[in-house]
Amino acid sequence: MKRSFIREILESIDSDTISFAGGLPDEKLFPIEDLRKASEKVFENPQNLQYTVSNGIPSLREKIAGLYNKEGFETKASNILITTGSQQGLFIIAKYFQNSKIIVEEPSYLGAVNVFRMNGLEMQSVPLAYDGIESRQFEDGYSNTKLAYLIPDFQNPKGSLYSSEKRREAAKSVLKHGGYLIEDAPYSELYFDQKMPSISSLIPDNSLHLGSFSKTLSPSLRIGWIRANEEMIKRLTVIKETIDLHSCGISQYILDHYLDDLNSYETHLAALRGAYKAKMHIFTKALQENLKEFQFEVPKGGMFVFGSLPGVDTFELVQKCIKEKVVYVPANQFYLDRPLSDEIRFNFTYTAQHEVEEGLQRINKALKA
Amino acid sequence: MKRSFIREILESIDSDTISFAGGLPDEKLFPIEDLRKASEKVFENPQNLQYTVSNGIPSLREKIAGLYNKEGFETKASNILITTGSQQGLFIIAKYFQNSKIIVEEPSYLGAVNVFRMNGLEMQSVPLAYDGIESRQFEDGYSNTKLAYLIPDFQNPKGSLYSSEKRREAAKSVLKHGGYLIEDAPYSELYFDQKMPSISSLIPDNSLHLGSFSKTLSPSLRIGWIRANEEMIKRLTVIKETIDLHSCGISQYILDHYLDDLNSYETHLAALRGAYKAKMHIFTKALQENLKEFQFEVPKGGMFVFGSLPGVDTFELVQKCIKEKVVYVPANQFYLDRPLSDEIRFNFTYTAQHEVEEGLQRINKALKA
Repeated sequence: MKRSFIREILESIDSDTISFAGGLPDEKLFPIEDLRKASEKVFENPQNLQYTVSNGIPSLREKIAGLYNKEGFETKASNILITTGSQQGLFIIAKYFQNSKIIVEEPSYLGAVNVFRMNGLEMQSVPLAYDGIESRQFEDGYSNTKLAYLIPDFQNPKGSLYSSEKRREAAKSVLKHGGYLIEDAPYSELYFDQKMPSISSLIPDNSLHLGSFSKTLSPSLRIGWIRANEEMIKRLTVIKETIDLHSCGISQYILDHYLDDLNSYETHLAALRGAYKAKMHIFTKALQENLKEFQFEVPKGGMFVFGSLPGVDTFELVQKCIKEKVVYVPANQFYLDRPLSDEIRFNFTYTAQHEVEEGLQRINKALKA
Repeated sequence: MKRSFIREILESIDSDTISFAGGLPDEKLFPIEDLRKASEKVFENPQNLQYTVSNGIPSLREKIAGLYNKEGFETKASNILITTGSQQGLFIIAKYFQNSKIIVEEPSYLGAVNVFRMNGLEMQSVPLAYDGIESRQFEDGYSNTKLAYLIPDFQNPKGSLYSSEKRREAAKSVLKHGGYLIEDAPYSELYFDQKMPSISSLIPDNSLHLGSFSKTLSPSLRIGWIRANEEMIKRLTVIKETIDLHSCGISQYILDHYLDDLNSYETHLAALRGAYKAKMHIFTKALQENLKEFQFEVPKGGMFVFGSLPGVDTFELVQKCIKEKVVYVPANQFYLDRPLSDEIRFNFTYTAQHEVEEGLQRINKALKA
């Protein structure tokens, strides 16, 4: 098992290095004052410091279910399992389906690929375009695996957004063959124009929908969730309990208090979307000016710009970039066989405006050297 | 995989039921005011809400290492991996050693047994006495497995405390055969008279020592750790990262601030030991008065009184007790094959004084019915 390139970078770069690598939210946009107020309430009740139930505190599960219902996706608290971030949700699901075959997008999220490998899942990749997975190949593969892992909204790394048609086609394949879809949705709230209905909402009993507060509120809380049918939630809860008894209670109670004021949450989300959209425009403009060879699609949400430097081995280039004190993730990391790749994933949410131009110029310098 | 009887009970009993079942700390003894103050500081810095490193924040690892050094067990921050409670520490270790053979005490901690089963470890049990594991049988078994899981301090469920001799013998076997010892130490700070040196301190390179703040400060924080040699920590960090990226950052920073004042921590621990010792005396006295047939040893620390009702099937009895609105854990749960057992594990830390007598009288009523 290789460690994540991204995590290794995160742990090793110095403070002078400009990082476009991690999928980090902008710290200045955390609703820190509201979270602080919520945390104060947690310490008013000693019971909040005690062990709690494995599936997550009922009140928070109720509120998360409410977020689904508000969008017309009927969901009860018993459809929700609280996890230690989406990452643990993926691990629990992978443990449940261990040694199965599974369809994954290519490129795909490295953290999921590692989880699947660690649990003996045999991955079969289907190419991902900017408007979603290739439907015919998905149907062919899924008929064999009856299990798939997709990130339909602002995919990591590609930033792609599934079209309505590709969502319907994927749902159709799942229903036809009667298996499960694992839908990873950490970026779904970070849309710039409008939110699209999840694939899971089309197949509520055949889907495991993964959500997270890491990209919207704070990753440090380590709170995500799985939405699935009740029976599946019960089976996954047994695994969850075995792994860590339950997720951090303090974080769960903080979120529970924070979500008491839904207006405030929605105002925060709207501000976050606006700020990230502005950062994306700054980043893509700076790309066009400072790294002219880079070809990409303007993302419609999420945290990443994905594209290519035609003919350039971007894994080789990143080694030079690290010396120039700038870093990104070379896209070979996101392909199962780590092929030669001329693609790059840039994160545009973390870096400050004045670092973007400087960072891209450093990359350009490394490229031209 | 069966769910833990204890966790199921915890999730299903009503508020009228007196529970001696869970291994719950006394909520009135949480240092809630000091933890609240520490949490306030966390929200002064937005970086504390960001993703952090997988092995745990450096400053907290440094402080945990300091606790070992203070007792003469030489330890660096790089010997520490922060985990989501000890339970996750066990899971990570079990994942690393998956499909190996392992010696376990009998009876043993159900949460560990479930973790080992889930990761394909083949358990071989060695009987546990009140002064530790049977040394000859341990040596015989360990020579074969080169891996063992022991809880030397106030074991769960038996409350046993390993003698100095049995500690030395166990360490000798590990060194002789060159494998590993997994030493689970969640109750080590809860001694009533004196702390004994860990087995791990005798074999620093061949041990994985599991610690936790769940029994000493608050389980809700979900922060434990593994102490092991540096190479092992690196290997376990890869697994940790795959499971949940990192443990709750908020909790880590709360603990980091809390432990800035070590005097206050030690004063708290001393008070906790005194309070639990008093609760234990109340409980054992009430046992002698209200459940005269129960035979047990007075514990020297920890959270449990373990003993037997000779000739009584305590699993059958607990069903009747639930109807009488009192619950304990029947000891068959702690044996690998779930044999008929006349033993019981009582928790004495959680219940209030006025509930102890009432609860034991209800059990006596069920017994005599």
